[in-house]
Amino acid sequence: MPAKLNTAVVGATGYSGLELTRLLLRHPQVETPLLLSRQGEGSTPVNLADLFPVLSGNGGYPLQPLSWDKLKEKGVQLLFLATPHEASRALVPEAVARGLRVIDLSGAWRLREAAHRAVYAFKDEGSAAAEEFTERAVYGLPELNGDAIPGATVVANPGCYATSVILALAPLVKAGILDRQRGIVSDSKSGVSGAGKEPTSRTHFVSVADNLSAYSVFGHRHTGEILEQLRLTPEELIFAPHLLPIPRGILSTIYVHLNQDTKAADIESCFRGFYAGKRWVRIFAPPRLPEIQFSANTNFCDIGFSLAKDGRRLVVISCLDNLLKGAAGQAIQNMNLMYGWKEEEGLQ
Amino acid sequence: MPAKLNTAVVGATGYSGLELTRLLLRHPQVETPLLLSRQGEGSTPVNLADLFPVLSGNGGYPLQPLSWDKLKEKGVQLLFLATPHEASRALVPEAVARGLRVIDLSGAWRLREAAHRAVYAFKDEGSAAAEEFTERAVYGLPELNGDAIPGATVVANPGCYATSVILALAPLVKAGILDRQRGIVSDSKSGVSGAGKEPTSRTHFVSVADNLSAYSVFGHRHTGEILEQLRLTPEELIFAPHLLPIPRGILSTIYVHLNQDTKAADIESCFRGFYAGKRWVRIFAPPRLPEIQFSANTNFCDIGFSLAKDGRRLVVISCLDNLLKGAAGQAIQNMNLMYGWKEEEGLQ
Amino acid sequence: MPAKLNTAVVGATGYSGLELTRLLLRHPQVETPLLLSRQGEGSTPVNLADLFPVLSGNGGYPLQPLSWDKLKEKGVQLLFLATPHEASRALVPEAVARGLRVIDLSGAWRLREAAHRAVYAFKDEGSAAAEEFTERAVYGLPELNGDAIPGATVVANPGCYATSVILALAPLVKAGILDRQRGIVSDSKSGVSGAGKEPTSRTHFVSVADNLSAYSVFGHRHTGEILEQLRLTPEELIFAPHLLPIPRGILSTIYVHLNQDTKAADIESCFRGFYAGKRWVRIFAPPRLPEIQFSANTNFCDIGFSLAKDGRRLVVISCLDNLLKGAAGQAIQNMNLMYGWKEEEGLQ
Amino acid sequence: MPAKLNTAVVGATGYSGLELTRLLLRHPQVETPLLLSRQGEGSTPVNLADLFPVLSGNGGYPLQPLSWDKLKEKGVQLLFLATPHEASRALVPEAVARGLRVIDLSGAWRLREAAHRAVYAFKDEGSAAAEEFTERAVYGLPELNGDAIPGATVVANPGCYATSVILALAPLVKAGILDRQRGIVSDSKSGVSGAGKEPTSRTHFVSVADNLSAYSVFGHRHTGEILEQLRLTPEELIFAPHLLPIPRGILSTIYVHLNQDTKAADIESCFRGFYAGKRWVRIFAPPRLPEIQFSANTNFCDIGFSLAKDGRRLVVISCLDNLLKGAAGQAIQNMNLMYGWKEEEGLQ
Repeated sequence: MPAKLNTAVVGATGYSGLELTRLLLRHPQVETPLLLSRQGEGSTPVNLADLFPVLSGNGGYPLQPLSWDKLKEKGVQLLFLATPHEASRALVPEAVARGLRVIDLSGAWRLREAAHRAVYAFKDEGSAAAEEFTERAVYGLPELNGDAIPGATVVANPGCYATSVILALAPLVKAGILDRQRGIVSDSKSGVSGAGKEPTSRTHFVSVADNLSAYSVFGHRHTGEILEQLRLTPEELIFAPHLLPIPRGILSTIYVHLNQDTKAADIESCFRGFYAGKRWVRIFAPPRLPEIQFSANTNFCDIGFSLAKDGRRLVVISCLDNLLKGAAGQAIQNMNLMYGWKEEEGLQ
Repeated sequence: MPAKLNTAVVGATGYSGLELTRLLLRHPQVETPLLLSRQGEGSTPVNLADLFPVLSGNGGYPLQPLSWDKLKEKGVQLLFLATPHEASRALVPEAVARGLRVIDLSGAWRLREAAHRAVYAFKDEGSAAAEEFTERAVYGLPELNGDAIPGATVVANPGCYATSVILALAPLVKAGILDRQRGIVSDSKSGVSGAGKEPTSRTHFVSVADNLSAYSVFGHRHTGEILEQLRLTPEELIFAPHLLPIPRGILSTIYVHLNQDTKAADIESCFRGFYAGKRWVRIFAPPRLPEIQFSANTNFCDIGFSLAKDGRRLVVISCLDNLLKGAAGQAIQNMNLMYGWKEEEGLQ
Repeated sequence: MPAKLNTAVVGATGYSGLELTRLLLRHPQVETPLLLSRQGEGSTPVNLADLFPVLSGNGGYPLQPLSWDKLKEKGVQLLFLATPHEASRALVPEAVARGLRVIDLSGAWRLREAAHRAVYAFKDEGSAAAEEFTERAVYGLPELNGDAIPGATVVANPGCYATSVILALAPLVKAGILDRQRGIVSDSKSGVSGAGKEPTSRTHFVSVADNLSAYSVFGHRHTGEILEQLRLTPEELIFAPHLLPIPRGILSTIYVHLNQDTKAADIESCFRGFYAGKRWVRIFAPPRLPEIQFSANTNFCDIGFSLAKDGRRLVVISCLDNLLKGAAGQAIQNMNLMYGWKEEEGLQ
Repeated sequence: MPAKLNTAVVGATGYSGLELTRLLLRHPQVETPLLLSRQGEGSTPVNLADLFPVLSGNGGYPLQPLSWDKLKEKGVQLLFLATPHEASRALVPEAVARGLRVIDLSGAWRLREAAHRAVYAFKDEGSAAAEEFTERAVYGLPELNGDAIPGATVVANPGCYATSVILALAPLVKAGILDRQRGIVSDSKSGVSGAGKEPTSRTHFVSVADNLSAYSVFGHRHTGEILEQLRLTPEELIFAPHLLPIPRGILSTIYVHLNQDTKAADIESCFRGFYAGKRWVRIFAPPRLPEIQFSANTNFCDIGFSLAKDGRRLVVISCLDNLLKGAAGQAIQNMNLMYGWKEEEGLQ
């Protein structure tokens, strides 16, 4: 039996980091991960089970201050970053210099084009390190980038919204059947865990319950990922996120026009062909449509659609769990590809 | 002091009917309404406060079997129908023959064009009565039809979704600034009271909570109202409703393209101009956008928008309470117009 | 027509303060209230409609820094404090010195006994002013203290939990039918608005949704009010609050033993007799029990019960809206008593 | 490697049956279970993945009509019944006659005493079969009945509420420290899945959301289980269930008086001692208390407590997932005991 992989997680105290830690803890090929906090995140080691009592009863999970020596001593080969993007920008170059492979869950290294990165206003924009890792980072969407991920040193784990939109559109874009000039609309809705663990007036229960609100219309950070991966121009896409009164899950309703009269069976074939053999995408045959509940707490991205009688107007529905296929689950899927394991290992 | 108006409500046991009854009970110009149940709805009189304990403490509210004699005896002049559409189709001709005015909350008389009515498959389609009342019924959207409503005998109270979409688009359509060829998308989301009081697997708490689902994409009954009132062709609109895990409220996110470069200030002026003096429409200046909570439990339709930097792509957000501005509140507003009272009477 | 009353509200930006402001705005006997913020609460005047867009469309609601001169100039006679308790401790003596009457929604002046106040650890405990106003303040529970409230200078508006428990128990205590030695248990559950508007990890949507938690068992601040008003000893009561995943409403389930075999009809008579003529208490006849929805958004306290077959064990259910009968609505009710208006004025 | 166990599930279409099926599907010692529907439940085979799309993507799950021949042919040894109690009353004798072992999730065989069974009004009460299996059935609470379960032919899987209350009280009862004469109160709150999948006016989203209601006070079916397992008299317990606006999870707040002055450390020791080595009970040290979220989606029963300063009044909080430790998870735990596997097999 080969030795198990040693991993470490920085940022296990956030929602994605916690979910990632839970997945790593029961992954059959992986040792219990080292849990690290960045300097300033908290002065003393914290036990993760104190923050998240759901982890109780399986032992403690002490958090230790991030230390490269500790990583070396423990033989860590793969580092997960569930950190704010500026922290990831700083940590990735050093981690790689020390021989680590990295899966970064932040938005730090997802974008190749400076115009798309502008919304982040990275402090190190333009530096040699920034340029090097922008080039080296592989966009970790396994269904599209399955060839590049196995050899990657740095995997930029995709955004949750971006995953839901890209997976819904990629087959149609590749098939060349979209009338892009008429524009693509993605009306996306996310549960509150997508807004992070920081208490704000926006995440207060009373603000969210019995409510729905749109936000960051025309300006959400995930827009650039969608444009880049699908090679769309900014004018071709309207992306409007909404905050749902639920803890987790994303549903994107995507509106496109087709450039030829099309039958529902053709659309279904297009999706099924593109995702043949892909373990974590499920295609729904009409009239059944995905709902958030179906993929919540799973690593699936569910895709369904409804075609107008004119065969020209298509509505695609795409659902996933923002913390799993939209974050931690996809990170595990990427790790599985990087180490040659089965894509579903540790995700069932 | 002039005598108060005598009214009756058929169907007070549904969500809209209950809301309507509560509004009538505290309307200063109206007597306590007569509450009527259709034959077969229930064999014996029921007390509305038994069904809805929220009404307790203000006295009882006995429901009586519908009887035209009783209506005459009580001097009822205005009849509210909160009934299924087939019931309204049958009741309206008789009510008018007996000299009553009617505000019908169902979809029975909202549509002028047979093609739009097809989705209802009315049993009396083509009959002389059907043709007469299709012609006579006034679409009861006060902000658009304020001239026709005062003299109406039969008011067809608009659908909840339709109200949210029509009010959001009417100023833009009138201004002639839409590029209709690129299509209009309305991604609409409604609380569960919009699905009615009947318990079904779809309205079961466990099916709705922590969930979001699209339904009736390309086939919802309110589509025809939107097309007709805005004079759009079916190809120009995609309307996709979604079921939200909240009790009440609608948010429509509407995506349009403009036929000329436009500034946000112009869009705001367009909305403010169109709704100048309209008591129940509120315009939000960017970057503030309406949220469902803001108009819940009020009769307001709130409208806001976000314009892309290119000045060509516009997202309009429209919110209302599906049981008030989307049903019972709008019915009261129509009554106020029909009897020459202030538009806000009984609605504050 | 007599002149309307001039009032002012300090702390309109909290949940109770907002609700109070909305009630005052439509109270027929009251002028538009002056809205004041304490020094340090925010440097510049804020418009309440910006904080709470639900107020939009009715005009603005500018907040002004608290100034005694301004109060005098505007002829304010009644001051509402929706402030933290330490702020109320400081403001009340000065307000009274300046000839104002005060209704204080905080816990500052509710408790006569030092032992009960200990949990607050008031900074001015023992000072002459503290002793004076502890004596002068009238506990503003209209159903129990209707005689003292009309002449009060300072009304201490009761706590939300306390109101629900005291109203449920007072008739039984007065009737002398409780077996107190066996103990009284109040298992109370409140919506999140009861925890205040401050965003914390405890009020984060993801912490509250799909959850229920007990807190402050044996140590909640409202315990003293219940003991004092009902003249119970600390050993006679267990009070355990819980946080519900809903925005508003309280349900208290109260368990008592009776000292004699009793019939349900006797219990019902006991409640109905005690609350005869009381506008804002509704008694439910078994087997119907109050639910949170029934009294939400109303000023009612609903009371129902279930009696064991042995006639000795009684469960009382008491529901109210924590922001209305539990706070702002009760404050209006107190004002109505203080100025000789009908108890329901402005509350329907 | 030994052959895996062949099992069958009757009633996989309910919430508990579905959860059970999902657990069996990934249990390492068990073959894919045979899914059976009772005659009349539905005329034709149904695919479980059609009812529960969350099962999609793992293959189909056809339901077949219940047939004893089919069970024999497939070599089924263990039959799970997730059926209404009357169905279980009829099926168990026949299943045992055919050599099967049974785990029954209904209330059919949980109660030894006729007085406790009265609330069910079983049609076969008093028959020879009823008496035989009432005697033979083992109450399947592993933490209390771990000795009897391994050899059981029929396991009566406990009720969800009963599990939460019994596990919280058993250590205290055994220690003899309760002052039973002063009475035990269990104020229990459950998510809506506990009310079953049947759509009713009570499970309608609009009835449950933003609400809390008590029901079956003094008359809930699980009361008898609690009394019997803890050997309490009916007068010693008040059990009051409440319906929470959440999909799943139970929290019981249990109020007891102690017959001697006790320290918190003693209470903690009492619980820890009793549950030493028990994999699926977690004890919380004060002041931390269990919350519904902590045990949701796990098989844990979490227990915590708060002791009054007088050392005499104790509040115990007990949480579990009503579909897991309260139903399907506990059934798997029982199966593990019956076949000599580790207690956590298939439950992590």
